[in-house]
Amino acid sequence: MELTFDLGRRVLEQQPFSRLLGAELTRLDADGAELQLALRPDLLQQNGFAHGGVVCYLADNALTYAGGLALGAAVVTSEFKINYVRPAIGSRAIARAAVVHAGKRQAVCRCDVLVQDAGSEKLVATALGTIALAGTKND
Amino acid sequence: MELTFDLGRRVLEQQPFSRLLGAELTRLDADGAELQLALRPDLLQQNGFAHGGVVCYLADNALTYAGGLALGAAVVTSEFKINYVRPAIGSRAIARAAVVHAGKRQAVCRCDVLVQDAGSEKLVATALGTIALAGTKND
Amino acid sequence: MELTFDLGRRVLEQQPFSRLLGAELTRLDADGAELQLALRPDLLQQNGFAHGGVVCYLADNALTYAGGLALGAAVVTSEFKINYVRPAIGSRAIARAAVVHAGKRQAVCRCDVLVQDAGSEKLVATALGTIALAGTKND
Amino acid sequence: MELTFDLGRRVLEQQPFSRLLGAELTRLDADGAELQLALRPDLLQQNGFAHGGVVCYLADNALTYAGGLALGAAVVTSEFKINYVRPAIGSRAIARAAVVHAGKRQAVCRCDVLVQDAGSEKLVATALGTIALAGTKND
Repeated sequence: MELTFDLGRRVLEQQPFSRLLGAELTRLDADGAELQLALRPDLLQQNGFAHGGVVCYLADNALTYAGGLALGAAVVTSEFKINYVRPAIGSRAIARAAVVHAGKRQAVCRCDVLVQDAGSEKLVATALGTIALAGTKND
Repeated sequence: MELTFDLGRRVLEQQPFSRLLGAELTRLDADGAELQLALRPDLLQQNGFAHGGVVCYLADNALTYAGGLALGAAVVTSEFKINYVRPAIGSRAIARAAVVHAGKRQAVCRCDVLVQDAGSEKLVATALGTIALAGTKND
Repeated sequence: MELTFDLGRRVLEQQPFSRLLGAELTRLDADGAELQLALRPDLLQQNGFAHGGVVCYLADNALTYAGGLALGAAVVTSEFKINYVRPAIGSRAIARAAVVHAGKRQAVCRCDVLVQDAGSEKLVATALGTIALAGTKND
Repeated sequence: MELTFDLGRRVLEQQPFSRLLGAELTRLDADGAELQLALRPDLLQQNGFAHGGVVCYLADNALTYAGGLALGAAVVTSEFKINYVRPAIGSRAIARAAVVHAGKRQAVCRCDVLVQDAGSEKLVATALGTIALAGTKND
Protein backbone atom coordinates (compact mmCIF):
# COMPACT_ATOMS: atom_id res chain seq x y z
CA MET A 1 0.00 0.00 0.00
CA GLU A 2 1.33 3.40 -0.95
CA LEU A 3 2.45 5.51 1.97
CA THR A 4 0.66 8.83 1.79
CA PHE A 5 0.85 11.71 4.26
CA ASP A 6 -2.60 10.83 5.63
CA LEU A 7 -1.76 7.17 6.02
CA GLY A 8 1.57 8.11 7.59
CA ARG A 9 -0.20 10.25 10.20
CA ARG A 10 -2.63 7.43 10.99
CA VAL A 11 0.24 4.95 11.41
CA LEU A 12 2.02 7.33 13.78
CA GLU A 13 -1.23 7.76 15.73
CA GLN A 14 -1.38 3.95 16.04
CA GLN A 15 2.08 3.80 17.65
CA PRO A 16 1.58 4.08 21.41
CA PHE A 17 5.24 5.02 21.90
CA SER A 18 5.02 7.84 19.35
CA ARG A 19 1.92 9.15 21.12
CA LEU A 20 3.73 8.93 24.48
CA LEU A 21 6.52 11.10 23.07
CA GLY A 22 4.17 13.44 21.24
CA ALA A 23 5.73 12.95 17.81
CA GLU A 24 4.00 14.46 14.81
CA LEU A 25 4.49 13.72 11.12
CA THR A 26 4.83 17.19 9.63
CA ARG A 27 5.78 16.37 6.04
CA LEU A 28 5.80 13.33 3.78
CA ASP A 29 6.31 13.96 0.10
CA ALA A 30 8.62 13.14 -2.77
CA ASP A 31 11.48 14.89 -0.97
CA GLY A 32 11.24 12.79 2.17
CA ALA A 33 9.74 12.73 5.64
CA GLU A 34 9.76 15.14 8.54
CA LEU A 35 8.85 14.31 12.13
CA GLN A 36 8.74 16.80 14.99
CA LEU A 37 8.23 16.74 18.69
CA ALA A 38 8.18 19.28 21.48
CA LEU A 39 11.05 18.74 23.91
CA ARG A 40 8.94 18.43 27.04
CA PRO A 41 10.79 18.14 30.37
CA ASP A 42 10.15 14.41 30.55
CA LEU A 43 12.06 13.81 27.31
CA LEU A 44 15.32 15.16 28.70
CA GLN A 45 18.35 13.60 30.41
CA GLN A 46 20.07 14.73 33.58
CA ASN A 47 21.72 17.81 32.03
CA GLY A 48 18.59 19.27 30.50
CA PHE A 49 19.28 18.13 26.93
CA ALA A 50 16.94 15.91 24.96
CA HIS A 51 17.85 12.34 25.85
CA GLY A 52 19.81 10.47 23.17
CA GLY A 53 16.98 7.96 23.16
CA VAL A 54 14.57 10.67 22.01
CA VAL A 55 16.93 11.74 19.25
CA CYS A 56 17.48 8.17 18.05
CA TYR A 57 13.74 7.44 18.26
CA LEU A 58 13.15 10.40 15.92
CA ALA A 59 15.92 9.36 13.53
CA ASP A 60 14.76 5.74 13.45
CA ASN A 61 11.15 6.69 12.81
CA ALA A 62 11.91 9.34 10.19
CA LEU A 63 14.19 6.88 8.36
CA THR A 64 11.33 4.38 8.34
CA TYR A 65 8.92 6.93 6.87
CA ALA A 66 11.42 7.89 4.19
CA GLY A 67 11.89 4.22 3.33
CA GLY A 68 8.11 3.79 3.22
CA LEU A 69 7.92 6.43 0.51
CA ALA A 70 9.99 4.17 -1.72
CA LEU A 71 8.77 0.76 -0.60
CA GLY A 72 5.19 1.20 0.57
CA ALA A 73 3.59 1.50 3.97
CA ALA A 74 4.63 -1.85 5.48
CA VAL A 75 8.27 -1.26 6.30
CA VAL A 76 10.61 -1.64 9.25
CA THR A 77 14.02 -0.26 10.13
CA SER A 78 16.58 -2.96 9.55
CA GLU A 79 19.60 -1.09 10.90
CA PHE A 80 20.93 2.41 11.28
CA LYS A 81 23.85 4.38 12.57
CA ILE A 82 23.65 7.73 14.27
CA ASN A 83 26.27 10.35 15.09
CA TYR A 84 25.36 12.85 17.78
CA VAL A 85 27.09 16.12 16.97
CA ARG A 86 25.72 18.59 19.54
CA PRO A 87 23.71 18.52 22.76
CA ALA A 88 20.03 18.70 21.82
CA ILE A 89 19.05 21.91 23.58
CA GLY A 90 15.91 23.58 22.35
CA SER A 91 12.17 23.65 22.45
CA ARG A 92 11.51 21.34 19.52
CA ALA A 93 13.30 18.51 17.71
CA ILE A 94 12.88 17.92 13.98
CA ALA A 95 14.00 14.89 11.99
CA ARG A 96 14.27 15.14 8.22
CA ALA A 97 14.88 11.95 6.29
CA ALA A 98 15.25 11.16 2.60
CA VAL A 99 15.91 8.14 0.41
CA VAL A 100 19.48 7.73 -0.85
CA HIS A 101 18.81 4.60 -2.91
CA ALA A 102 15.83 2.28 -3.16
CA GLY A 103 15.49 -1.23 -4.49
CA LYS A 104 12.34 -3.33 -4.37
CA ARG A 105 12.79 -4.68 -0.88
CA GLN A 106 15.20 -2.28 0.76
CA ALA A 107 15.94 1.40 0.80
CA VAL A 108 19.00 3.18 2.17
CA CYS A 109 17.96 6.46 3.78
CA ARG A 110 19.62 9.29 5.61
CA CYS A 111 18.28 11.58 8.28
CA ASP A 112 19.31 14.80 10.01
CA VAL A 113 17.95 15.67 13.44
CA LEU A 114 17.82 19.35 14.36
CA VAL A 115 16.64 21.34 17.34
CA GLN A 116 14.78 24.59 17.08
CA ASP A 117 15.43 27.28 19.61
CA ALA A 118 14.62 30.95 19.51
CA GLY A 119 13.80 30.69 15.84
CA SER A 120 17.04 29.09 14.64
CA GLU A 121 17.75 25.46 13.81
CA LYS A 122 20.86 23.51 14.74
CA LEU A 123 21.94 20.07 13.65
CA VAL A 124 22.21 17.70 16.62
CA ALA A 125 22.57 14.32 14.94
CA THR A 126 22.84 12.63 11.58
CA ALA A 127 21.88 9.07 10.73
CA LEU A 128 22.16 6.56 7.90
CA GLY A 129 20.25 3.31 7.70
CA THR A 130 18.45 0.56 5.85
CA ILE A 131 14.67 0.24 5.69
CA ALA A 132 13.18 -3.08 4.61
CA LEU A 133 9.77 -4.30 3.57
CA ALA A 134 8.13 -5.79 6.65
CA GLY A 135 8.35 -9.56 6.66
CA THR A 136 11.49 -9.62 4.52
CA LYS A 137 14.09 -8.17 6.86
CA ASN A 138 15.10 -11.34 8.53
CA ASP A 139 13.50 -13.92 6.32
CA MET B 1 34.32 10.43 39.19
CA GLU B 2 34.21 6.66 39.18
CA LEU B 3 30.96 5.19 37.94
CA THR B 4 29.66 2.80 40.58
CA PHE B 5 26.40 0.85 40.54
CA ASP B 6 24.90 3.24 43.11
CA LEU B 7 25.96 6.33 41.21
CA GLY B 8 24.71 4.75 37.99
CA ARG B 9 21.29 4.20 39.52
CA ARG B 10 21.15 7.80 40.76
CA VAL B 11 22.10 9.11 37.32
CA LEU B 12 19.35 7.04 35.71
CA GLU B 13 16.89 8.36 38.29
CA GLN B 14 17.92 11.88 37.28
CA GLN B 15 17.06 11.26 33.62
CA PRO B 16 13.41 12.22 33.17
CA PHE B 17 13.22 10.24 29.92
CA SER B 18 14.54 7.09 31.59
CA ARG B 19 11.93 7.50 34.34
CA LEU B 20 9.21 8.02 31.71
CA LEU B 21 10.18 4.69 30.12
CA GLY B 22 10.67 2.93 33.44
CA ALA B 23 14.26 1.84 32.78
CA GLU B 24 16.21 0.25 35.59
CA LEU B 25 19.95 -0.28 35.92
CA THR B 26 20.16 -3.92 36.99
CA ARG B 27 23.91 -4.52 36.85
CA LEU B 28 27.07 -2.45 36.56
CA ASP B 29 30.32 -4.24 37.26
CA ALA B 30 33.62 -5.12 35.67
CA ASP B 31 31.80 -7.18 33.05
CA GLY B 32 29.61 -4.35 31.84
CA ALA B 33 26.20 -2.79 32.27
CA GLU B 34 22.67 -4.13 32.17
CA LEU B 35 19.50 -2.08 31.80
CA GLN B 36 15.98 -3.45 31.85
CA LEU B 37 12.50 -2.16 31.31
CA ALA B 38 9.03 -3.65 31.31
CA LEU B 39 7.43 -3.49 27.86
CA ARG B 40 4.31 -1.60 28.90
CA PRO B 41 1.66 -1.06 26.23
CA ASP B 42 2.69 2.55 25.71
CA LEU B 43 6.21 1.50 24.66
CA LEU B 44 4.97 -0.46 21.65
CA GLN B 45 4.42 0.33 17.98
CA GLN B 46 1.37 -0.40 15.84
CA ASN B 47 1.97 -4.17 15.61
CA GLY B 48 2.39 -4.78 19.31
CA PHE B 49 6.19 -5.01 19.31
CA ALA B 50 8.40 -2.76 21.36
CA HIS B 51 9.00 0.36 19.30
CA GLY B 52 12.44 0.59 17.68
CA GLY B 53 12.87 3.83 19.58
CA VAL B 54 12.60 1.94 22.87
CA VAL B 55 15.14 -0.62 21.74
CA CYS B 56 17.60 2.02 20.54
CA TYR B 57 17.07 4.05 23.74
CA LEU B 58 18.09 0.97 25.73
CA ALA B 59 21.10 0.25 23.53
CA ASP B 60 22.25 3.87 23.61
CA ASN B 61 21.94 4.12 27.37
CA ALA B 62 23.54 0.76 28.11
CA LEU B 63 26.46 1.62 25.82
CA THR B 64 26.91 4.86 27.75
CA TYR B 65 26.96 3.02 31.07
CA ALA B 66 29.51 0.54 29.76
CA GLY B 67 31.67 3.40 28.54
CA GLY B 68 31.32 5.09 31.89
CA LEU B 69 32.85 2.03 33.55
CA ALA B 70 36.03 2.71 31.62
CA LEU B 71 36.01 6.50 31.47
CA GLY B 72 34.21 7.69 34.59
CA ALA B 73 30.71 8.95 35.23
CA ALA B 74 30.68 11.99 32.95
CA VAL B 75 30.29 10.42 29.52
CA VAL B 76 28.09 10.76 26.47
CA THR B 77 27.33 8.56 23.49
CA SER B 78 29.23 9.89 20.53
CA GLU B 79 27.80 7.55 17.91
CA PHE B 80 26.42 4.06 17.56
CA LYS B 81 25.01 1.62 15.07
CA ILE B 82 22.20 -0.81 15.75
CA ASN B 83 20.96 -3.86 13.86
CA TYR B 84 17.45 -5.01 14.69
CA VAL B 85 17.32 -8.76 14.21
CA ARG B 86 13.87 -9.77 15.48
CA PRO B 87 10.59 -8.10 16.45
CA ALA B 88 10.81 -7.22 20.14
CA ILE B 89 7.90 -9.25 21.47
CA GLY B 90 7.94 -9.97 25.16
CA SER B 91 7.22 -8.68 28.60
CA ARG B 92 10.63 -7.21 29.34
CA ALA B 93 13.59 -5.82 27.39
CA ILE B 94 17.16 -6.20 28.60
CA ALA B 95 20.25 -4.44 27.25
CA ARG B 96 23.68 -5.81 28.08
CA ALA B 97 26.69 -3.73 27.15
CA ALA B 98 30.43 -4.18 27.57
CA VAL B 99 33.61 -2.34 26.71
CA VAL B 100 35.50 -3.58 23.64
CA HIS B 101 38.39 -1.13 23.92
CA ALA B 102 38.96 1.92 26.09
CA GLY B 103 41.39 4.80 25.77
CA LYS B 104 41.52 7.84 28.04
CA ARG B 105 38.83 9.86 26.33
CA GLN B 106 36.88 7.31 24.34
CA ALA B 107 35.64 3.77 24.67
CA VAL B 108 34.25 1.48 22.00
CA CYS B 109 31.43 -0.61 23.44
CA ARG B 110 29.00 -3.21 22.22
CA CYS B 111 25.51 -4.04 23.38
CA ASP B 112 22.95 -6.79 22.87
CA VAL B 113 19.26 -6.13 23.45
CA LEU B 114 17.09 -9.12 24.36
CA VAL B 115 13.46 -9.65 25.20
CA GLN B 116 12.28 -11.95 27.89
CA ASP B 117 9.11 -13.87 27.35
CA ALA B 118 7.77 -16.89 29.14
CA GLY B 119 11.10 -17.41 30.82
CA SER B 120 13.30 -17.46 27.74
CA GLU B 121 15.45 -14.70 26.27
CA LYS B 122 15.76 -13.78 22.61
CA LEU B 123 18.18 -11.40 20.96
CA VAL B 124 16.31 -8.56 19.24
CA ALA B 125 19.10 -6.13 18.41
CA THR B 126 22.84 -5.67 18.60
CA ALA B 127 24.73 -2.39 18.69
CA LEU B 128 28.28 -1.04 18.50
CA GLY B 129 29.29 2.49 19.38
CA THR B 130 31.68 5.05 20.78
CA ILE B 131 31.34 6.63 24.21
CA ALA B 132 33.27 9.82 24.94
CA LEU B 133 34.12 11.83 28.03
CA ALA B 134 31.55 14.61 28.29
CA GLY B 135 32.90 17.88 27.04
CA THR B 136 35.41 16.23 24.71
CA LYS B 137 33.15 14.68 22.09
CA ASN B 138 32.93 17.60 19.79
CA ASP B 139 35.61 19.84 21.14
CA MET C 1 25.33 -23.85 -2.43
CA GLU C 2 26.80 -24.57 0.98
CA LEU C 3 29.91 -22.56 1.79
CA THR C 4 32.64 -24.98 2.80
CA PHE C 5 36.24 -24.16 3.69
CA ASP C 6 37.42 -25.49 0.31
CA LEU C 7 34.84 -23.53 -1.63
CA GLY C 8 35.65 -20.47 0.46
CA ARG C 9 39.32 -20.73 -0.45
CA ARG C 10 38.48 -21.10 -4.14
CA VAL C 11 36.23 -18.02 -4.02
CA LEU C 12 38.99 -15.99 -2.38
CA GLU C 13 41.42 -17.19 -5.05
CA GLN C 14 38.95 -15.93 -7.67
CA GLN C 15 38.96 -12.42 -6.21
CA PRO C 16 41.75 -10.51 -7.93
CA PHE C 17 41.75 -7.88 -5.18
CA SER C 18 42.16 -10.50 -2.47
CA ARG C 19 45.08 -11.99 -4.41
CA LEU C 20 46.62 -8.52 -4.79
CA LEU C 21 46.51 -8.10 -1.01
CA GLY C 22 47.59 -11.64 -0.29
CA ALA C 23 44.61 -12.55 1.87
CA GLU C 24 44.20 -16.12 2.99
CA LEU C 25 41.15 -17.88 4.39
CA THR C 26 42.56 -19.65 7.44
CA ARG C 27 39.39 -21.00 9.05
CA LEU C 28 35.75 -21.46 8.12
CA ASP C 29 33.69 -23.62 10.41
CA ALA C 30 30.61 -23.54 12.60
CA ASP C 31 32.26 -20.91 14.80
CA GLY C 32 32.88 -18.46 12.00
CA ALA C 33 35.48 -17.29 9.52
CA GLU C 34 39.08 -16.20 9.80
CA LEU C 35 41.07 -14.33 7.18
CA GLN C 36 44.71 -13.36 7.46
CA LEU C 37 47.21 -11.37 5.51
CA ALA C 38 50.85 -10.42 5.92
CA LEU C 39 51.27 -6.68 6.40
CA ARG C 40 53.66 -6.13 3.51
CA PRO C 41 55.11 -2.62 3.11
CA ASP C 42 52.75 -1.81 0.27
CA LEU C 43 49.71 -2.32 2.50
CA LEU C 44 50.70 0.48 4.88
CA GLN C 45 49.90 4.18 5.14
CA GLN C 46 52.31 7.07 5.64
CA ASN C 47 53.06 6.32 9.32
CA GLY C 48 53.92 2.68 8.84
CA PHE C 49 50.61 1.26 10.09
CA ALA C 50 48.38 -0.96 8.00
CA HIS C 51 46.17 1.34 5.95
CA GLY C 52 42.59 1.63 7.17
CA GLY C 53 41.56 0.38 3.75
CA VAL C 54 43.37 -2.89 4.40
CA VAL C 55 41.71 -3.29 7.77
CA CYS C 56 38.24 -2.54 6.39
CA TYR C 57 38.86 -4.86 3.42
CA LEU C 58 39.59 -7.66 5.89
CA ALA C 59 36.57 -6.88 8.03
CA ASP C 60 34.25 -6.65 5.03
CA ASN C 61 35.47 -9.91 3.55
CA ALA C 62 35.45 -11.83 6.84
CA LEU C 63 31.90 -10.61 7.55
CA THR C 64 30.87 -11.90 4.13
CA TYR C 65 32.38 -15.31 4.79
CA ALA C 66 30.66 -15.53 8.16
CA GLY C 67 27.35 -14.60 6.51
CA GLY C 68 27.98 -17.22 3.85
CA LEU C 69 28.17 -19.89 6.55
CA ALA C 70 24.56 -19.13 7.39
CA LEU C 71 23.17 -18.23 3.98
CA GLY C 72 25.19 -20.18 1.43
CA ALA C 73 28.03 -19.27 -0.86
CA ALA C 74 26.36 -16.55 -2.94
CA VAL C 75 26.33 -13.61 -0.56
CA VAL C 76 27.36 -9.98 -0.52
CA THR C 77 28.01 -7.42 2.19
CA SER C 78 25.03 -5.13 2.39
CA GLU C 79 26.44 -2.70 4.95
CA PHE C 80 28.81 -2.60 7.86
CA LYS C 81 30.28 -0.31 10.46
CA ILE C 82 33.84 -0.40 11.71
CA ASN C 83 35.53 1.16 14.73
CA TYR C 84 39.30 1.44 14.58
CA VAL C 85 40.63 1.16 18.11
CA ARG C 86 44.42 1.03 17.69
CA PRO C 87 47.01 1.66 14.98
CA ALA C 88 47.51 -1.60 13.09
CA ILE C 89 51.20 -2.18 13.75
CA GLY C 90 52.43 -5.71 13.28
CA SER C 91 53.53 -8.33 10.85
CA ARG C 92 50.16 -9.93 10.20
CA ALA C 93 46.49 -8.94 10.34
CA ILE C 94 43.77 -11.39 11.28
CA ALA C 95 40.02 -10.92 10.94
CA ARG C 96 37.67 -13.19 12.89
CA ALA C 97 33.98 -12.99 12.08
CA ALA C 98 30.93 -14.81 13.38
CA VAL C 99 27.19 -14.80 12.85
CA VAL C 100 25.11 -12.93 15.42
CA HIS C 101 21.73 -13.72 13.90
CA ALA C 102 20.72 -15.30 10.60
CA GLY C 103 17.43 -15.29 8.74
CA LYS C 104 16.84 -16.80 5.31
CA ARG C 105 18.04 -13.87 3.26
CA GLN C 106 20.17 -11.87 5.66
CA ALA C 107 22.63 -12.44 8.44
CA VAL C 108 23.97 -9.96 10.97
CA CYS C 109 27.62 -10.69 11.67
CA ARG C 110 30.39 -9.22 13.77
CA CYS C 111 34.11 -9.20 13.21
CA ASP C 112 37.25 -8.36 15.17
CA VAL C 113 40.46 -7.44 13.38
CA LEU C 114 43.71 -8.09 15.22
CA VAL C 115 47.38 -7.66 14.46
CA GLN C 116 50.00 -10.15 15.42
CA ASP C 117 53.39 -8.90 16.47
CA ALA C 118 56.15 -10.66 18.30
CA GLY C 119 53.81 -13.50 19.14
CA SER C 120 51.04 -11.47 20.75
CA GLU C 121 47.71 -10.36 19.29
CA LYS C 122 46.11 -6.96 19.67
CA LEU C 123 42.65 -5.82 18.66
CA VAL C 124 42.83 -3.03 16.09
CA ALA C 125 39.23 -2.78 14.89
CA THR C 126 35.78 -4.20 15.43
CA ALA C 127 32.95 -4.31 12.92
CA LEU C 128 29.25 -5.13 12.72
CA GLY C 129 27.32 -5.60 9.51
CA THR C 130 24.64 -7.22 7.39
CA ILE C 131 25.31 -9.91 4.81
CA ALA C 132 22.65 -10.62 2.20
CA LEU C 133 22.00 -13.32 -0.34
CA ALA C 134 23.38 -12.09 -3.65
CA GLY C 135 20.64 -10.77 -5.87
CA THR C 136 18.37 -9.89 -2.97
CA LYS C 137 20.22 -7.00 -1.35
CA ASN C 138 18.75 -4.24 -3.37
CA ASP C 139 15.91 -5.99 -5.12
CA MET D 1 49.08 22.08 9.79
CA GLU D 2 46.40 23.16 7.35
CA LEU D 3 45.43 20.52 4.83
CA THR D 4 45.80 21.99 1.36
CA PHE D 5 45.26 20.25 -1.96
CA ASP D 6 49.03 20.06 -2.53
CA LEU D 7 49.71 18.66 0.93
CA GLY D 8 46.83 16.23 0.47
CA ARG D 9 48.36 14.92 -2.75
CA ARG D 10 51.75 14.50 -1.09
CA VAL D 11 50.19 12.59 1.82
CA LEU D 12 48.40 10.26 -0.60
CA GLU D 13 51.66 9.75 -2.46
CA GLN D 14 53.25 8.74 0.86
CA GLN D 15 50.67 6.02 1.45
CA PRO D 16 52.04 2.84 -0.11
CA PHE D 17 48.56 1.26 -0.11
CA SER D 18 47.06 4.23 -1.96
CA ARG D 19 49.82 3.98 -4.55
CA LEU D 20 49.21 0.23 -4.88
CA LEU D 21 45.56 0.94 -5.67
CA GLY D 22 46.32 3.93 -7.89
CA ALA D 23 44.17 6.40 -5.95
CA GLU D 24 44.33 10.06 -6.87
CA LEU D 25 43.16 13.10 -4.93
CA THR D 26 41.21 15.03 -7.53
CA ARG D 27 39.68 17.80 -5.44
CA LEU D 28 40.14 19.25 -1.95
CA ASP D 29 38.46 22.53 -1.25
CA ALA D 30 35.92 24.15 1.02
CA ASP D 31 33.23 21.85 -0.36
CA GLY D 32 35.05 18.65 0.52
CA ALA D 33 37.35 16.01 -0.90
CA GLU D 34 37.26 13.84 -4.00
CA LEU D 35 39.34 10.73 -4.60
CA GLN D 36 39.34 8.67 -7.77
CA LEU D 37 40.82 5.45 -9.00
CA ALA D 38 40.69 3.44 -12.18
CA LEU D 39 38.98 0.09 -11.65
CA ARG D 40 41.83 -2.06 -12.92
CA PRO D 41 41.18 -5.81 -13.18
CA ASP D 42 43.16 -6.51 -10.00
CA LEU D 43 40.78 -4.35 -7.94
CA LEU D 44 37.76 -6.52 -8.71
CA GLN D 45 36.09 -9.46 -7.00
CA GLN D 46 34.99 -12.74 -8.52
CA ASN D 47 32.00 -11.31 -10.41
CA GLY D 48 33.86 -8.50 -12.12
CA PHE D 49 32.69 -5.73 -9.78
CA ALA D 50 35.04 -3.55 -7.81
CA HIS D 51 35.75 -5.39 -4.57
CA GLY D 52 33.96 -4.04 -1.52
CA GLY D 53 37.38 -3.52 0.00
CA VAL D 54 38.24 -1.06 -2.77
CA VAL D 55 35.01 0.82 -2.25
CA CYS D 56 35.46 1.00 1.52
CA TYR D 57 39.12 2.01 1.11
CA LEU D 58 37.95 4.95 -1.02
CA ALA D 59 35.20 5.92 1.40
CA ASP D 60 37.51 5.68 4.41
CA ASN D 61 40.23 7.75 2.77
CA ALA D 62 37.88 10.40 1.37
CA LEU D 63 36.23 10.76 4.79
CA THR D 64 39.68 11.30 6.30
CA TYR D 65 40.50 14.01 3.76
CA ALA D 66 37.21 15.76 4.40
CA GLY D 67 37.86 15.63 8.13
CA GLY D 68 41.35 17.00 7.54
CA LEU D 69 39.83 20.08 5.92
CA ALA D 70 38.19 20.90 9.23
CA LEU D 71 40.80 19.62 11.67
CA GLY D 72 44.17 19.94 9.94
CA ALA D 73 46.42 17.48 8.18
CA ALA D 74 47.11 15.07 11.05
CA VAL D 75 43.86 13.12 11.24
CA VAL D 76 42.71 9.53 11.31
CA THR D 77 39.42 7.78 10.71
CA SER D 78 37.94 6.85 14.05
CA GLU D 79 34.95 4.90 12.75
CA PHE D 80 32.61 4.77 9.79
CA LYS D 81 29.65 2.94 8.41
CA ILE D 82 29.09 2.13 4.76
CA ASN D 83 26.03 0.98 2.84
CA TYR D 84 26.67 -0.64 -0.51
CA VAL D 85 23.73 0.13 -2.77
CA ARG D 86 24.75 -1.21 -6.18
CA PRO D 87 27.45 -3.44 -7.67
CA ALA D 88 30.42 -1.23 -8.54
CA ILE D 89 30.62 -1.83 -12.27
CA GLY D 90 32.48 0.75 -14.28
CA SER D 91 35.83 2.02 -15.38
CA ARG D 92 36.45 4.45 -12.56
CA ALA D 93 35.38 4.90 -8.93
CA ILE D 94 34.95 8.32 -7.36
CA ALA D 95 34.50 9.12 -3.68
CA ARG D 96 33.15 12.51 -2.67
CA ALA D 97 33.22 13.42 1.00
CA ALA D 98 32.18 16.49 2.95
CA VAL D 99 32.07 17.64 6.55
CA VAL D 100 28.69 17.43 8.29
CA HIS D 101 29.84 18.91 11.60
CA ALA D 102 33.26 19.74 12.97
CA GLY D 103 34.46 20.37 16.51
CA LYS D 104 38.05 20.97 17.55
CA ARG D 105 39.10 17.35 17.81
CA GLN D 106 36.54 15.48 15.76
CA ALA D 107 34.55 15.90 12.58
CA VAL D 108 31.56 13.93 11.37
CA CYS D 109 31.77 13.49 7.61
CA ARG D 110 29.77 11.80 4.92
CA CYS D 111 30.86 10.29 1.64
CA ASP D 112 29.26 8.99 -1.54
CA VAL D 113 31.10 6.54 -3.76
CA LEU D 114 30.14 6.48 -7.44
CA VAL D 115 31.28 4.59 -10.49
CA GLN D 116 31.71 6.17 -13.85
CA ASP D 117 30.83 4.18 -16.90
CA ALA D 118 30.23 5.29 -20.45
CA GLY D 119 30.06 8.90 -19.30
CA SER D 120 27.42 8.50 -16.60
CA GLU D 121 27.85 8.25 -12.84
CA LYS D 122 26.03 5.89 -10.51
CA LEU D 123 26.00 5.81 -6.74
CA VAL D 124 27.41 2.52 -5.43
CA ALA D 125 27.86 3.24 -1.73
CA THR D 126 27.32 5.87 0.91
CA ALA D 127 29.22 6.28 4.15
CA LEU D 128 29.10 8.26 7.39
CA GLY D 129 31.92 8.46 9.90
CA THR D 130 34.00 10.24 12.48
CA ILE D 131 37.45 11.68 11.80
CA ALA D 132 39.67 12.53 14.76
CA LEU D 133 42.87 14.46 15.27
CA ALA D 134 45.72 11.95 15.23
CA GLY D 135 46.86 11.13 18.72
CA THR D 136 43.50 11.93 20.28
CA LYS D 137 41.32 9.12 18.96
CA ASN D 138 42.01 6.62 21.62
CA ASP D 139 43.70 8.70 24.22
